[in-house]
Amino acid sequence: MKTHLSCIPCFFKQALEAARLAGADEVTQKKVLDELARSLGDFSLSDCPPQMGKIIYGLVRKITGKDDPFKEIKDKSNKFALALYPEMKKKVEDSDDRLLTAVELAIAGNIIDYGVKNSLEVEKEIEKFLNQDFNINSKNNKVRFDYQDFKHALDRVDSILYLADNAGEVVFDRLLIEEMHKKVIYAVREKPIINDALIEDAYACGIQKIARVISSGSDAPGTILDICSEEFLKIYNQAELIISKGQGNFEALNNQTRPIFFLFKVKCPVLAQEIDCKLGSIVLWKS
Amino acid sequence: MKTHLSCIPCFFKQALEAARLAGADEVTQKKVLDELARSLGDFSLSDCPPQMGKIIYGLVRKITGKDDPFKEIKDKSNKFALALYPEMKKKVEDSDDRLLTAVELAIAGNIIDYGVKNSLEVEKEIEKFLNQDFNINSKNNKVRFDYQDFKHALDRVDSILYLADNAGEVVFDRLLIEEMHKKVIYAVREKPIINDALIEDAYACGIQKIARVISSGSDAPGTILDICSEEFLKIYNQAELIISKGQGNFEALNNQTRPIFFLFKVKCPVLAQEIDCKLGSIVLWKS
Repeated sequence: MKTHLSCIPCFFKQALEAARLAGADEVTQKKVLDELARSLGDFSLSDCPPQMGKIIYGLVRKITGKDDPFKEIKDKSNKFALALYPEMKKKVEDSDDRLLTAVELAIAGNIIDYGVKNSLEVEKEIEKFLNQDFNINSKNNKVRFDYQDFKHALDRVDSILYLADNAGEVVFDRLLIEEMHKKVIYAVREKPIINDALIEDAYACGIQKIARVISSGSDAPGTILDICSEEFLKIYNQAELIISKGQGNFEALNNQTRPIFFLFKVKCPVLAQEIDCKLGSIVLWKS
Repeated sequence: MKTHLSCIPCFFKQALEAARLAGADEVTQKKVLDELARSLGDFSLSDCPPQMGKIIYGLVRKITGKDDPFKEIKDKSNKFALALYPEMKKKVEDSDDRLLTAVELAIAGNIIDYGVKNSLEVEKEIEKFLNQDFNINSKNNKVRFDYQDFKHALDRVDSILYLADNAGEVVFDRLLIEEMHKKVIYAVREKPIINDALIEDAYACGIQKIARVISSGSDAPGTILDICSEEFLKIYNQAELIISKGQGNFEALNNQTRPIFFLFKVKCPVLAQEIDCKLGSIVLWKS
């Protein structure tokens, strides 16, 4: 997906929020914005937003000198999600359609994302999400939710490549992986980028017990194939089925031809318009 | 009021929206954003936001070649507000406290503003505003509403300088001016800037029947004294009482020592934080 002009104001907003999270003073925050402004002329709108995200958060890292501004938030998200695990596991076990509930919860986990909204009141949102009627199709007829296709696709494969998104959310991925009963390779980012899951987050959330954890090689907030490692690309190209979590991975991969199911919440108005969904929709999208 | 770093992403948003309103194609829209980005390093945060607004909308005018992108919106706002006038006049006449109702409606008129939100559904908002309980103090104890002070101040003066804000809103100002029974000078902007009222808008809304209409000399979206005309400054400095409409005028004048009552709706989170009000609050603020 290409970057829209409407993304540009949001880039400045994200850069400012990240600089603040990094503990930068006002002068340094302004330096980050000025430097981003200087880079703007070189941005190519044909690149996808995660490509821009890589540049922006790289700037923040360079100027603030803080390598991982979201470290604390990620640790908190992991702990927070782990504490929710037993309750959510019970929800899956009590469900008439365990797989469906696990899919829905895996998408619910995607609300743990400080990249778009750092003021997101995670706890309240999850509570709201857990308490709502999960019959997604009945709520919003514009939402795409290819659950039957997903179920049939699962029946035909033995193994899955699972592309992670945020820290914390990993716990929710675990619920889904536990229900699929397949051999899973779980791919996270190579280096800190926003609050995206790294190897250490995958381990903190216990994914290594049920999947092989690898890095994609990408340090962008999306699986941009051009910057992924050769090892990852080999796995990606041979995967029987790919589950891709989060908006960033969708933006990076939505034009690919591999058999991918995208699970995400639509977090920005630009993407909502692009795929003709309402902002806030939860999506299960067959490529 | 100084400009905050959080205003910067919003400047890009406003520039983009104005370029689009001016009918610019995507390449020209990008040019506007790039040019704004180039100017950013020169911006002084000690200037007030309307000073920045002047620069930003100046850029849009220069690059798109369209002198008054909001002309159509202003004409529409004037007509729309004029059509509402009889209903609102009746509301004032039926009120137990005619002046209070006129003050409230003058603030309600401030929602006709495409500068902050171009998607504002004006009609719905006015309806909602008109139908709500106008007992403002009871609704939100954080809102400042110095109505008693305003009433007493009015009792002690014969004349008022009234600083206009947006086109359309002028009709709502008329309701208030009609209730005050004072000699009024009504000051509008000198040149097109966003949807702010010009002499032509004041006349379209019939203000000249009840007040002397002048230009402040300012072509910023706020009454920035440094760029006002000498004629205006003489009137401003001698005014017995000043009524200032809108957020832009507040941002430009809130540190001044003249006897000013600011009437506005809080339209952005930065100002809301600055004055410790909720976003969307309606304010009557004694300087």
